[in-house]
Amino acid sequence: MDETVDNKQIVLKEYIRGYPKESDMATQVSKMSLKVPHGSNGIVVKNLYLSCDPYMRSRMTKSTAVYVEAFTPGQPIVGYGVAKVVDSGTPKFKKDDLVWGMTGWEEYSLITNTDTLFKIEHTDVPLSYYTGLLGMPGMTAYAGFYEVATPKKGEYVFISAASGAVGQLVGQFAKLFGCYVVGSAGSKEKVDLLKNKFGFDEAFNYKEEKDLAAALKRYFPDGIDIYFENVGGKMLDAVLLNMRPHGRIAVCGMISQYNLENPEGVHNLTQVIVKRLRVEGFLVFEYYHLYPKFLEMVLPYIKEGKINYLEDTAEGLESAPAALIGLYSGRNIGKQVVVVARE
Amino acid sequence: MDETVDNKQIVLKEYIRGYPKESDMATQVSKMSLKVPHGSNGIVVKNLYLSCDPYMRSRMTKSTAVYVEAFTPGQPIVGYGVAKVVDSGTPKFKKDDLVWGMTGWEEYSLITNTDTLFKIEHTDVPLSYYTGLLGMPGMTAYAGFYEVATPKKGEYVFISAASGAVGQLVGQFAKLFGCYVVGSAGSKEKVDLLKNKFGFDEAFNYKEEKDLAAALKRYFPDGIDIYFENVGGKMLDAVLLNMRPHGRIAVCGMISQYNLENPEGVHNLTQVIVKRLRVEGFLVFEYYHLYPKFLEMVLPYIKEGKINYLEDTAEGLESAPAALIGLYSGRNIGKQVVVVARE
Ligand SMILES: NC(=O)c1ccc[n+]([C@@H]2O[C@H](COP(=O)([O-])OP(=O)(O)OC[C@H]3O[C@@H](n4cnc5c(N)ncnc54)[C@H](OP(=O)(O)O)[C@@H]3O)[C@@H](O)[C@H]2O)c1
Ligand SMILES: NC(=O)c1ccc[n+]([C@@H]2O[C@H](COP(=O)([O-])OP(=O)(O)OC[C@H]3O[C@@H](n4cnc5c(N)ncnc54)[C@H](OP(=O)(O)O)[C@@H]3O)[C@@H](O)[C@H]2O)c1
Repeated sequence: MDETVDNKQIVLKEYIRGYPKESDMATQVSKMSLKVPHGSNGIVVKNLYLSCDPYMRSRMTKSTAVYVEAFTPGQPIVGYGVAKVVDSGTPKFKKDDLVWGMTGWEEYSLITNTDTLFKIEHTDVPLSYYTGLLGMPGMTAYAGFYEVATPKKGEYVFISAASGAVGQLVGQFAKLFGCYVVGSAGSKEKVDLLKNKFGFDEAFNYKEEKDLAAALKRYFPDGIDIYFENVGGKMLDAVLLNMRPHGRIAVCGMISQYNLENPEGVHNLTQVIVKRLRVEGFLVFEYYHLYPKFLEMVLPYIKEGKINYLEDTAEGLESAPAALIGLYSGRNIGKQVVVVARE
Repeated sequence: MDETVDNKQIVLKEYIRGYPKESDMATQVSKMSLKVPHGSNGIVVKNLYLSCDPYMRSRMTKSTAVYVEAFTPGQPIVGYGVAKVVDSGTPKFKKDDLVWGMTGWEEYSLITNTDTLFKIEHTDVPLSYYTGLLGMPGMTAYAGFYEVATPKKGEYVFISAASGAVGQLVGQFAKLFGCYVVGSAGSKEKVDLLKNKFGFDEAFNYKEEKDLAAALKRYFPDGIDIYFENVGGKMLDAVLLNMRPHGRIAVCGMISQYNLENPEGVHNLTQVIVKRLRVEGFLVFEYYHLYPKFLEMVLPYIKEGKINYLEDTAEGLESAPAALIGLYSGRNIGKQVVVVARE
């Protein structure tokens, strides 16, 4: 029997320019079969938790200059999420399996390409963690810090957007590794979290600093060995002036630039020569083969209480557009998750 | 007997701002003993060839942001050169030895720190080559290309300021290595040299291109794997848009920025993430331990006629200021050398 249900969806109305607004997205209801179509080796899932991630902005614009395809207007937004298998056309997954990976911003999704999905094996942690700590942002922090930044014990590490999904983890990995860690964030509350919950050595509110280079000089009188770059623009310029010889900049993101029609100019790049810096960009999906190794490291940390993790939870699919655009004004405190259903 | 001679010198008059002018330097004559002072383990040399190098601009300004000390106004300018030992206070060198390394812009110099000097062992090539092909710029091309850019056979290589001391060699090393090589330079004559004398696959005059990104697209329809960066600013911005995934930018210099009070902004740095680029700065002196290995590679190339090399020779110490400032307007065609004496 073909069970058909109403399926609430969040769609992008049309391609945008500049900062995204709630009204760029709309809720619609369509019909959806909960059975995998005959002959398909896809799966039908019930979406539980959806992830709001900064890179999603790039999919709201048609551009040839990015690595992911643009969304299709009128179709549900696509993003990372945690979901439960309702019906399966592949031996890889069976009914009631839990998965994380690319899904749709809707109650139920038919996922035809299951290659990029991860089966969730450890369920003694909150499932929503697979949108963050145990999912893409966790892997980003892991790959960026250990693989790209090549840290040494005792080094001086600076992290921007430090209280966010990725930043809070990089900071804690760096502390556990034996580094001195300072983070920047956009409010007093976030700065307090960095120092008190996430164990950063120091933190500051970049919005209250007139001279970012001077602020960094205060926290790093001897300079920065590793900059975990989430922000770009003026912060990068200030960091360049404060790097130590042979420093490394792991370029994870530049969120301050994503909504600008004309990106800001970065002026201090001669420092790359003078200080012999390595500035290296990376994309997390090229490191997913390390996921088992990552879990091996991070699951014990969680169990031993060595890692703290903070989520910002928006309730209900309808709250997703506001949650997503909130990333670009710093509304989220910790990893931004949308709860579609709890099981 | 203490032999004292008149010693012509080029001095920096005072610290400068903006573009250097000939009148920022002056010629003076002082007295000089040709004997090493009692108790000194330095050497007295007769300077033969002096090297004009772009980085020298940074020593004409008092700044904390650079890796070399500023010149001392009223004292001879310091730079790379080829010299002949006149008297020695160290067993490392004896009278009539030929050396290359840091010396003064004057007829005779007392060099107290001989640690950074290289003894010239191969004299079956023009001695002036030790200011370029077989000296610091040669080592720069070698280290930047092989060590920093980590080339693979068949890769697409772009070089800016390509007809200069460093660029002409990088291009030839890259061709010998099996890469596809395109260079940019500032005149038709230089473009012809790149194609006809140095064997580049293609070359263009950047001054005649309104849209540098479009020009690069023309020469690299599939993108650039390696950019050997000598110029910075607008060229870097255009290159970023044309890099291939996992491309590398060996940041050797940014001559377009050295004379600006406010460096230009580079706008396309999000490409570092999107393309997963490695942008790495280096300074040649950290690679001098490879000099023997470099000679082993390059001397046979020279003997077999596999490398062409072009110098631009200014005659006489008095011509040095004009030769130096000519670097910043592209007056030099090939490596800029100043002949003080031929032996
Ligand atoms: N390379 C990869 O594969 C990869 C993977 C995942 C994420 N990323 C990147 O990593 C960065 C962090 O992502 P996340 O998921 O951890 O997001 P997040 O930090 O949880 O959320 C974004 C945060 O960025 C800050 N922000 C927003 N606009 C800003 C601006 N103009 N200037 C400075 N800060 C601003 C806000 O915090 P404040 O209140 O502190 O301003 C906001 O809370 C992003 O750049 C993202 O694109 C890259
Ligand atoms: N990292 C290191 O250890 C190291 C060592 C040596 C050299 N370097 C750097 O390598 C680069 C090349 O040095 P070189 O000795 O080979 O010098 P060069 O190329 O022989 O001479 C400088 C050339 O730069 C070009 N130029 C000048 N102003 C420019 C501008 N505003 N825009 C574009 N091009 C400009 C001119 O050629 P056009 O006619 O083509 O414009 C000029 O002939 C420099 O940036 C230098 O600082 C670095």
